[in-house]
Amino acid sequence: MAVYTDVSDDDLASFVARYDIGEPIAFKGIAEGVSNSNFFLQTTQDRYILTVYEARAPREDLPFFIGLMDHLAGHGFACPRPIRMRDGEALADIAGKPAALVSYLDGLSVKKPTAAHCRAAGRAMADLHRAGAGFAMLRPNPLSVAGWRPLAEASGERAERISPGLSRRIADEVAFHEAHWPKGLPEGVIHADMFPDNVFFMMGRCSGVIDFYFAAHDALAYDLAIALNAWCFEADASFNMTKGQALLAGYEEVRPLDATEVAALPVLARGAALRFLLTRTLDLLDVPAGALVKPHDPMPYDRRLAFHRKITHAAEYGLVR
Amino acid sequence: MAVYTDVSDDDLASFVARYDIGEPIAFKGIAEGVSNSNFFLQTTQDRYILTVYEARAPREDLPFFIGLMDHLAGHGFACPRPIRMRDGEALADIAGKPAALVSYLDGLSVKKPTAAHCRAAGRAMADLHRAGAGFAMLRPNPLSVAGWRPLAEASGERAERISPGLSRRIADEVAFHEAHWPKGLPEGVIHADMFPDNVFFMMGRCSGVIDFYFAAHDALAYDLAIALNAWCFEADASFNMTKGQALLAGYEEVRPLDATEVAALPVLARGAALRFLLTRTLDLLDVPAGALVKPHDPMPYDRRLAFHRKITHAAEYGLVR
Repeated sequence: MAVYTDVSDDDLASFVARYDIGEPIAFKGIAEGVSNSNFFLQTTQDRYILTVYEARAPREDLPFFIGLMDHLAGHGFACPRPIRMRDGEALADIAGKPAALVSYLDGLSVKKPTAAHCRAAGRAMADLHRAGAGFAMLRPNPLSVAGWRPLAEASGERAERISPGLSRRIADEVAFHEAHWPKGLPEGVIHADMFPDNVFFMMGRCSGVIDFYFAAHDALAYDLAIALNAWCFEADASFNMTKGQALLAGYEEVRPLDATEVAALPVLARGAALRFLLTRTLDLLDVPAGALVKPHDPMPYDRRLAFHRKITHAAEYGLVR
Repeated sequence: MAVYTDVSDDDLASFVARYDIGEPIAFKGIAEGVSNSNFFLQTTQDRYILTVYEARAPREDLPFFIGLMDHLAGHGFACPRPIRMRDGEALADIAGKPAALVSYLDGLSVKKPTAAHCRAAGRAMADLHRAGAGFAMLRPNPLSVAGWRPLAEASGERAERISPGLSRRIADEVAFHEAHWPKGLPEGVIHADMFPDNVFFMMGRCSGVIDFYFAAHDALAYDLAIALNAWCFEADASFNMTKGQALLAGYEEVRPLDATEVAALPVLARGAALRFLLTRTLDLLDVPAGALVKPHDPMPYDRRLAFHRKITHAAEYGLVR
């Protein structure tokens, strides 16, 4: 949680002048988001979020992310809608960095999701997969199986500093997934980072999903496997079957999984745990001195991996057939 | 700018339940404030700011700060108004820390104030001094002249790490002010930290003042001397006479300075520069490893001090008589 960009009075004034959104009456940096800076902007007309893309955001992919939010919002999915400037463009610049203004979503993320939240999140994910179906742009997922070996090599033996044996466990997992990663599953646009902090609720219902900056084209069930890891484990890294059942049932209310997806779920969930173990391990090892953001602890994903390795059937995650 | 306190779902729910403010529909940490954590809370009823007081906030003084905002808002001054719980109390607790909910003020702070902003800020400060006149509680100012020697001794020779000769300059200034600090000036409640980031504007007019956590009983003109330092110097630490004139004229539109205050202004301005040099020097020397907040640079106040030492009359700050 941090704001990396200092927006001057002039920066803000000339930015707002390019839009038909009224005059600003509040502008505050928000302690949200790890790789970009976010600001709450209230004008005489409406409320907005201004996102300033920092160095880590792949600039060539920004039109994909903007286009995706536009497409999803246009197809009835509750997500931030990019606001267009007077000249029709949605990708602007502020303080010398690319930036986008999006509509404000009401709702609160939950820190400790209940089974009811998991069910609603599962339903929202299937809604997203449905709404994304006709989206024309394509972004391959850099954090799918082909991207894992380079990440593993970037941490290498240094992973031992975090936990004895970790570099070996990572190398074994990468090799396993390169050999066993499922192919031919139904594909489409996935969120790829639908953690509880990216899902808003109001009165117990999901009111929207934010942060599409990992979205990509991939197996739809891999998105669900990420959510299983993100929503259905307790603080002690133990799996909560009630929550798993709720998440999967919520998803299937909207989009039932086919037989190939059901069969692949254990490997996908194991791969999803590895993906977060890899990036968190590297983030922790490479944290710059004086960093404003505290990196996530990778170890809960090491423990999830150990759990997933023992799973042989999706029913063990709570899938009811 | 930081949020130090993690507010859980349960913390928020039980906090909100103690107020008659409706249901929360947005809750976001704000990247504002150095010593406390601030959250934007929107409910079905209104918008609020939740402040969680961190360890640095003097807890025994919280009733003074809350009472002052209550008093000022009740006397027509635009500042956050503390919201009372159903039981009538305004000081609550959340996540085991003291906390207060206050009304939300529209407006934007300016990073580079113009002379017009300085005039409006001067007027707002005099309004504050007027509105605070009948406030019954008393808090001596711990950061007035009597508090400077302990601060100087706490940094001591370590100040040399920041700038050669700084410890000597600080010691000389402390001795000078202990000998020459003016007595018998008109006193009352002062804000004591009215920097541009604590003053909001809308359509060029001051829409409110925030952050009363340095407020205390002291010479009213000392508050103005702090504002001269905070609003009327450029980034290169050169004094901007146009801004000084505007600030002082704005103040005197509401509350004209008396002869003793005019005579004291150069020493007060010099003392105010020392006060910020002292705390910033100490903050920079004592910054903890892994701190989330980058300390302010003290050196601009060393340069202001050199400027103030040459001033002999308030006219040199732009005071028109």
